[in-house]
Amino acid sequence: MTASTSTSTSTISSPAAAVPVLAVGSVAFDSIRTPWGAADRVLGGSATYFSLAASQFAPVRVVGVVGEDFGPEHEAVFRQRQVNIEGIERAPGRSFYWAGEYEADPNVRHTLTTELNVFADFSPKLPAAYRDSPVLFLGNIEPGLQIQVREECPAAKLVGGDTMNFWINSQPDQVRAFLGRLDLLMINDGEARELTGEANLHRAARRILELGPRAVVIKRGEHGASLYTAGGGYFAISGYPLEDVCDPTGAGDSFAGGMMGYLAQHRPHGLHREPDAADQNVLRRAVVYGSVMGSFACERFGVERLRTLTSAAVQRRYEEFQALAHFDRQP
Amino acid sequence: MTASTSTSTSTISSPAAAVPVLAVGSVAFDSIRTPWGAADRVLGGSATYFSLAASQFAPVRVVGVVGEDFGPEHEAVFRQRQVNIEGIERAPGRSFYWAGEYEADPNVRHTLTTELNVFADFSPKLPAAYRDSPVLFLGNIEPGLQIQVREECPAAKLVGGDTMNFWINSQPDQVRAFLGRLDLLMINDGEARELTGEANLHRAARRILELGPRAVVIKRGEHGASLYTAGGGYFAISGYPLEDVCDPTGAGDSFAGGMMGYLAQHRPHGLHREPDAADQNVLRRAVVYGSVMGSFACERFGVERLRTLTSAAVQRRYEEFQALAHFDRQP
Repeated sequence: MTASTSTSTSTISSPAAAVPVLAVGSVAFDSIRTPWGAADRVLGGSATYFSLAASQFAPVRVVGVVGEDFGPEHEAVFRQRQVNIEGIERAPGRSFYWAGEYEADPNVRHTLTTELNVFADFSPKLPAAYRDSPVLFLGNIEPGLQIQVREECPAAKLVGGDTMNFWINSQPDQVRAFLGRLDLLMINDGEARELTGEANLHRAARRILELGPRAVVIKRGEHGASLYTAGGGYFAISGYPLEDVCDPTGAGDSFAGGMMGYLAQHRPHGLHREPDAADQNVLRRAVVYGSVMGSFACERFGVERLRTLTSAAVQRRYEEFQALAHFDRQP
Repeated sequence: MTASTSTSTSTISSPAAAVPVLAVGSVAFDSIRTPWGAADRVLGGSATYFSLAASQFAPVRVVGVVGEDFGPEHEAVFRQRQVNIEGIERAPGRSFYWAGEYEADPNVRHTLTTELNVFADFSPKLPAAYRDSPVLFLGNIEPGLQIQVREECPAAKLVGGDTMNFWINSQPDQVRAFLGRLDLLMINDGEARELTGEANLHRAARRILELGPRAVVIKRGEHGASLYTAGGGYFAISGYPLEDVCDPTGAGDSFAGGMMGYLAQHRPHGLHREPDAADQNVLRRAVVYGSVMGSFACERFGVERLRTLTSAAVQRRYEEFQALAHFDRQP
């Protein structure tokens, strides 16, 4: 079986058109408790959710670090989705470990344990074959390392990224330098407020665009996501109506994976400085595919749902989003 | 000038097609403080916001009570929008008075004063000419009074309503009896959770539909609104991207006014028990018009923006909602 045949069974539309996406971030083990169940030391981490989601749309390469507890059964999760893990470094010790608990309202989460372990000294090492990657996703790691990866991939045409409150507060200048090198920031509502000091999300998004990105997506959890583009474009989609949120861990990273994967198919040469109408249509569809992947991620503990997800199920859910968001022009 | 000519200057599409909407609720004076300004003893109340918003779409009749502080200048606000206030009773004493303060995040509001005054003993008195009203809006008052108004209008074909935490907690059985007489409930997300004991909004909406309504709209503040219909229909729209929320007081009542007013034009004979495709299309557009009116209400203190709002501005904002929510079918 050739590589192109094997990907054609698991990607949307023409997989040959999709360029590779390089993702850097955490590969971790998570212990998760909710009022409805628990999962112990299951595979997680931002790069894991991202790459499994993006692999529905494009070939994915991962840069990360794991410890000695990362075994063949964990490798298999990536390999089954044709994710290239040559860039996952093995280090002595244990992998990043996170334990948390969600309340009945899944928006309320309590961290019980964070053990950085091998992730504490993470320094991304890109295999030579990764340096030509045209699309990058700089996941939530120290902003200096995000910038380093960006600079090691001079050919990149489209660069997406994420950050978090911890870096916004501890390294604000580095976060700004990082934003200056990004095309697309995908960020939580709370983080957008913290980054800009603006309580109003729409103002916060405009401030972020002034710092460099051509587009910013504000993820609003169950309420959906909003897209802002340089030059004044705006789009918003509500969340998928999940009656049972099993485990929201990784929903934001899965959103980013769906969005960047779709862009790797449809904008491999990047976005205009001020995204034009065609760019904006692609970005809107990418936000919806991000929402699709985020919604699937919540349906099972850990990455279970993403592992077994079919291309047909992804397409059906996109159509469900079409149906739930549609209304007629006024009569 | 005939009545039909006078309404045609202020309503959307064919005003002759719109049947009258009877609204019952509070007419009040509000003192409002925000980080950006303040307004002292301005005209407010649920029936006021509702009727000014609904008057963009249909003739409106109001049932309420005011005190001796309600003068000709306040009457004029209603009359300028052709709202019939024959049903507003004048009682000795002062009108309902509310004072509150919003934080920089307009979702956080603190009540400083509530003086029920003449509203404490409110018992709706319907003018004889109101009893044939085909469309009712039973605003947030004691559920027993809501039921009483419903029963005094046996010809009503479409009944919408609202309630609040206070009644849900103090008179749960009466609230359930009220819901059994409603076609459409419009309610906040927090109230939907409280009413049903379900943390998940989608489950909460399903429970509410089991109690009687043919449709329920859950208002999610800045995040938008969601529509659920008996038989499984679902629609969601994000909020309008207001960069400056001057005063969110009355946004929910204005939403209800836009929604019921539009339904009075397009569903004067009511909804199917399980809304069919045509009903659902109308309900979706009504939710968008509700969102339009709610967004305008936030732009100025009190009812200022609703007073001067033109039909053309309403139409433009509907088109903006179309533009911000649209995305293509997958290519």
